Amino acid sequence: METSSANQQYSFLQTARELSERFRQDAVERDRLGGTPKIQRDWIRESGLLKLLIPQEYGGDGQPWSAVLRVVREFARTDAALAHLYGYHFLSLTAVHLAGTEAQQRRYYRETAANQYFWGNSVNPLDDRTVGERMDGGVIVNGVKSFSSGSPDSDMLVISWRDAQTGEFLKGMVPTRRPGVQVHDDWDCMGQRQTGSGTVSFHDVRLDDEEVLVKPYANDRPFSTLTPILSQSILSAVFVGSAQGALEEARHYTLERARAWYRSGVSKASEEPSTLSRYGDLWIRCQSALTLAEKAWEKLDEVWEKEQNLTEAERGECAVLVAAANVHAGNVALEITSRIFEVMGARATASQYGFDRFWRNVRTHTLHNPAEFKQRNVGNWFVNGEAPEPGYYS
Amino acid sequence: METSSANQQYSFLQTARELSERFRQDAVERDRLGGTPKIQRDWIRESGLLKLLIPQEYGGDGQPWSAVLRVVREFARTDAALAHLYGYHFLSLTAVHLAGTEAQQRRYYRETAANQYFWGNSVNPLDDRTVGERMDGGVIVNGVKSFSSGSPDSDMLVISWRDAQTGEFLKGMVPTRRPGVQVHDDWDCMGQRQTGSGTVSFHDVRLDDEEVLVKPYANDRPFSTLTPILSQSILSAVFVGSAQGALEEARHYTLERARAWYRSGVSKASEEPSTLSRYGDLWIRCQSALTLAEKAWEKLDEVWEKEQNLTEAERGECAVLVAAANVHAGNVALEITSRIFEVMGARATASQYGFDRFWRNVRTHTLHNPAEFKQRNVGNWFVNGEAPEPGYYS
Amino acid sequence: METSSANQQYSFLQTARELSERFRQDAVERDRLGGTPKIQRDWIRESGLLKLLIPQEYGGDGQPWSAVLRVVREFARTDAALAHLYGYHFLSLTAVHLAGTEAQQRRYYRETAANQYFWGNSVNPLDDRTVGERMDGGVIVNGVKSFSSGSPDSDMLVISWRDAQTGEFLKGMVPTRRPGVQVHDDWDCMGQRQTGSGTVSFHDVRLDDEEVLVKPYANDRPFSTLTPILSQSILSAVFVGSAQGALEEARHYTLERARAWYRSGVSKASEEPSTLSRYGDLWIRCQSALTLAEKAWEKLDEVWEKEQNLTEAERGECAVLVAAANVHAGNVALEITSRIFEVMGARATASQYGFDRFWRNVRTHTLHNPAEFKQRNVGNWFVNGEAPEPGYYS
Amino acid sequence: METSSANQQYSFLQTARELSERFRQDAVERDRLGGTPKIQRDWIRESGLLKLLIPQEYGGDGQPWSAVLRVVREFARTDAALAHLYGYHFLSLTAVHLAGTEAQQRRYYRETAANQYFWGNSVNPLDDRTVGERMDGGVIVNGVKSFSSGSPDSDMLVISWRDAQTGEFLKGMVPTRRPGVQVHDDWDCMGQRQTGSGTVSFHDVRLDDEEVLVKPYANDRPFSTLTPILSQSILSAVFVGSAQGALEEARHYTLERARAWYRSGVSKASEEPSTLSRYGDLWIRCQSALTLAEKAWEKLDEVWEKEQNLTEAERGECAVLVAAANVHAGNVALEITSRIFEVMGARATASQYGFDRFWRNVRTHTLHNPAEFKQRNVGNWFVNGEAPEPGYYS
Repeated sequence: METSSANQQYSFLQTARELSERFRQDAVERDRLGGTPKIQRDWIRESGLLKLLIPQEYGGDGQPWSAVLRVVREFARTDAALAHLYGYHFLSLTAVHLAGTEAQQRRYYRETAANQYFWGNSVNPLDDRTVGERMDGGVIVNGVKSFSSGSPDSDMLVISWRDAQTGEFLKGMVPTRRPGVQVHDDWDCMGQRQTGSGTVSFHDVRLDDEEVLVKPYANDRPFSTLTPILSQSILSAVFVGSAQGALEEARHYTLERARAWYRSGVSKASEEPSTLSRYGDLWIRCQSALTLAEKAWEKLDEVWEKEQNLTEAERGECAVLVAAANVHAGNVALEITSRIFEVMGARATASQYGFDRFWRNVRTHTLHNPAEFKQRNVGNWFVNGEAPEPGYYS
Repeated sequence: METSSANQQYSFLQTARELSERFRQDAVERDRLGGTPKIQRDWIRESGLLKLLIPQEYGGDGQPWSAVLRVVREFARTDAALAHLYGYHFLSLTAVHLAGTEAQQRRYYRETAANQYFWGNSVNPLDDRTVGERMDGGVIVNGVKSFSSGSPDSDMLVISWRDAQTGEFLKGMVPTRRPGVQVHDDWDCMGQRQTGSGTVSFHDVRLDDEEVLVKPYANDRPFSTLTPILSQSILSAVFVGSAQGALEEARHYTLERARAWYRSGVSKASEEPSTLSRYGDLWIRCQSALTLAEKAWEKLDEVWEKEQNLTEAERGECAVLVAAANVHAGNVALEITSRIFEVMGARATASQYGFDRFWRNVRTHTLHNPAEFKQRNVGNWFVNGEAPEPGYYS
Repeated sequence: METSSANQQYSFLQTARELSERFRQDAVERDRLGGTPKIQRDWIRESGLLKLLIPQEYGGDGQPWSAVLRVVREFARTDAALAHLYGYHFLSLTAVHLAGTEAQQRRYYRETAANQYFWGNSVNPLDDRTVGERMDGGVIVNGVKSFSSGSPDSDMLVISWRDAQTGEFLKGMVPTRRPGVQVHDDWDCMGQRQTGSGTVSFHDVRLDDEEVLVKPYANDRPFSTLTPILSQSILSAVFVGSAQGALEEARHYTLERARAWYRSGVSKASEEPSTLSRYGDLWIRCQSALTLAEKAWEKLDEVWEKEQNLTEAERGECAVLVAAANVHAGNVALEITSRIFEVMGARATASQYGFDRFWRNVRTHTLHNPAEFKQRNVGNWFVNGEAPEPGYYS
Repeated sequence: METSSANQQYSFLQTARELSERFRQDAVERDRLGGTPKIQRDWIRESGLLKLLIPQEYGGDGQPWSAVLRVVREFARTDAALAHLYGYHFLSLTAVHLAGTEAQQRRYYRETAANQYFWGNSVNPLDDRTVGERMDGGVIVNGVKSFSSGSPDSDMLVISWRDAQTGEFLKGMVPTRRPGVQVHDDWDCMGQRQTGSGTVSFHDVRLDDEEVLVKPYANDRPFSTLTPILSQSILSAVFVGSAQGALEEARHYTLERARAWYRSGVSKASEEPSTLSRYGDLWIRCQSALTLAEKAWEKLDEVWEKEQNLTEAERGECAVLVAAANVHAGNVALEITSRIFEVMGARATASQYGFDRFWRNVRTHTLHNPAEFKQRNVGNWFVNGEAPEPGYYS
């Protein structure tokens, strides 16, 4: 069985690599345009990769999170926005796994596997403008939500609101085309420009009780609090892939286009010792980010398999390792995506290459939540043995 | 006299600050557009600042290079492209001071002061495609030259070519509107997008003997080899100004728009201790860059005043200090322009703010020539007491 | 007058350099021994440098603080402990200038100038174990005080205690040989090993009223709160001098003893491009620290001259600049003193050279008070325009 | 079988941890003394760990290199010198595995396993002063060799010399007590003070043919060229362990002894947010070094098992990964061992704690061969696909 799974995983990675190469063809142009990469999202739908994590009993491939994260990483080598969209598809979908009933899991896993649904979200917990009114057999949601990654061109959305009576924070699932849901596609940032992380507004959107997650943040069960750990893992994969992709593009440029500095004493840029030393330095950093991330992803697989048996201590250990991988990968990616220019030279700044998009993507995405607070959590765990308090971002 | 000069300098800085504030109004939009900032260049023309360095006897203000560099720095706080254009105006113009005859100096200084000419260049020494053919009383230039900063909308150009017979590298001055000179305005890079550093082509462009600099790189006179030191000084001012401007924009954003992190325990972003510590760190680095640059600029003033009496040793010491200031300012500016986002947060990545332009400008401009080789020169001087060999970039 | 002062300053620096070179002869051996550099302290006494800052009217040289700090820096090139002792001599002595009566100033300045008194201190404000009991015409002090820099072999001590009745923190001056004062000379740390920063204990030590500073921390007068700024300035000079000294020792070693790496392709270590690039990098950082420190020291001179006219705002600006210079110099010195080994190679770790003492000294001394809190002060000033609150360390 | 091996490995690690804790008791004192840790070396002998890597057929435990490296790491947490001695024991011993005949392997593995021999070396390839004269049935060696790690108190030595006739570089094995072998125990450096890396001299030392390795650097067999990869792996384990040990000592100090800064607003140092953030940062870096090292060690295990089937490409890939792990671990360890003081404060510099030994050890050991050249090798492999040329250090 394990071999078959390995083969399968190889095959997914192969598919992911081919898609990634296709994304690369117009990644520079699409970065400029922003908006929604509809064609590329459809390629992902067609590839079957949207059911990678879904258990086999529901028609999915039953692969672990690490498989998803490897695909995210492959995508990020050429297109960090599509990588993010793909990773967040599972983040949104698995809300039902973490906090849903068995019936909800069955329903949404099956529908997604059967129809290749692409999930987006509209759950920004720091945006309080969406309110739900309980009524017979359901809830009516009204309001506005920012940072709704992947909402444009999504088939399903996981959304969140405050309950008007209790003030409780709740989540539910709606088809994006349901009346009253309006995706504004107004994301316009310096990086991650095709993630569609803009505004969604809700006008009397009705969700039935079966579409509502009853206890999305029920802290008595550690398993239900994994969302921020999943999110940080996905971002770590985006960072590692961006760093790798940037380094590969630089290498290609150095070999194909760069000129040796006129006083370097060598005829080819790829032979200049200080250039090679810099490449060595950057590659070493990149490897350290990759390796730490892979260790964290393995830990995540273990945690995911424990489901309701997951203990607080196990959750805490995983949270710390994932935070570490996320912070380190972010720092490494920031450094690599900025320093590649030093091994390419002035002419590599031409707009046609779009090499700055790597830094812009990473710089934007590393701000998702502050590294400072992740570091404090890690430090508090190391020094005082206290696990990060489960929350929106930890 | 010194007081009057100080007053004058204050007044220039005041003018520069006002212009800089006007540049800021649409700097984000113009960065997006690229092309030539015609309106802003005309404001500079009208301001009188184009004659700041020109000796009083020729109708100029007789200010030292440090005054020019302070204006460059002021401009770079809001618009590094205009800062570069302004600094390179004097780099181009003073080619006649370094290597011209007295008659040439008189002519071009006077014409420039009288008409507020804006100079550009087309002299990239690593681009060998322009050739000059000697003929009676002059030379005919044909070919193409890349990286011609400030050529669009320029009044005068300093250009360079290889002599077809001798292979010698020569320079001359031509009005940009002279028949045969074609400015392509095809610069399209990720940063410094309005510096117009694109291609100029020459089709049978004739220069009279009086328009040719006979010995532009005559190494028997150290003074004639100052071009790379001037260039590095101008860039150091662009870097320092960019770093200061980025930090000021960040401060403004933190005070006006940023939100405290929901778990920070403070109500205002501007009170969060780790944010203040980061600001302190960045400000300290910025000060270290500013102070070292100012020291180098003072040294440049001394060297400039020596003219033909300048010794090789004095030239070397100045070259080392300017290289040091340039490298340090570049490093500091790279760090600050990337890390400002950490004190602003995710929402500061919105395109409307255009905060990434600071990093893109600095990243582009720090590649003008490799820091590695400047560091080697500095190191060789410190360890072995050898001054940098005068050349295109040192 | 200015020229004469410049000549004088040159002469002091010359004296300082000669002493520094003499310190260097057995600096490695003395670092190993720890204890008190009695011979070297006597050389300083004999040199006349102990009255450098004392106003001419009291028999001193009337030089500004920047002159003192330059001497500190010269000493630190070879011996950071003696540099610290010398700088802190003035820190202790000028307690009477900041907070004493005119009579006290006159008395202690005169006595010090006349007798070449060497001052130490016993004032650690975070050590609360010393208590003073008011009595007729004076006070009786009992207790223990740690971190009493320069107390061994001192002639005079400035000491501090809590008043038993009021809890107020007070300071006074005592001859070190006064009965009841016991200097333990028990400092044994990994760095700054000859600063004698150990314990002093007080057994019924009597101070007359004229030996007590009435309002040592009277915040209504900004001038009286300069102690931490002076202290940070002295440390900045120790850091800069240590960095310079380390770099000079490395250079000397590279030229005289280092071998080129067998695969470097060059025959002399001093010609290896990556070694030169590293030296360039380190020298540039060192210059940035030196330059920023000198700017801060100039500001300190201005502030010192204002005496009672000093405003809070002026004090704040100076505090920020000095904190910046201190933090930057500390960081640079830490980096340089660790990285010099990379340009010397494995054999430079031999104990006979004692090159690690530079790092040990700087690492020890940069902990005097946390950089983190200095950075916050600087950041708060930049962001919110608030001057550092005067206190024990700011 | 795998479980049994895992159990065994657990048991070795347990033994290693207990020894490490015993080393810790007087590590500070022994660092001060230098010389040879005879008692501790005997503890290692008694522990049985000296046969950990020896194949079971020869009486050893048959564990892989990664097991050895984990023990090295455990030792380095408290005593980097003993860690180095232990790792280099196997580096010396396995010279017979890499380049010896089957008979030689059998003999030395068996003798070592049976008698708990502790191996040292005297092979510094950059020291050319040892010469061998071929004679009937053996060779006579004369000369001197520096950097002979672990030679004092060793039972066996692997030594190297130049053949007087051919100039070839050869290696052989001798009992340390053989007449003519003189171990000088003259190592006196700022770090790794008990590694006994001093001089060995040879006075007519006779080796029989069976004690000579015929082709110690036979490049036609990649397996025989693993020495530098083993050496770099051992050092990576020393660096990682030193970083971990330093961080653990700091944590202990922060919890038990450190005081909160008087203006921090918290009552315990271990609760100060900036301190926790720093700890988080350092722990994250440490994890990245550990994880990358473990990945490299796994690759080494694979390579080791291939023996004579090892290809050049496989050797190259392993060399690159090990070099990467070594450089990264060295950098991380340098940073952590210097920055721990910032989370402990000034009083942690007291000599009694000896916390500076971590930095001194790492700084000394990272100079074993230059990071610059390792980085170039890594870069050349990444950019040009060229494997590091096997040599003394790569």
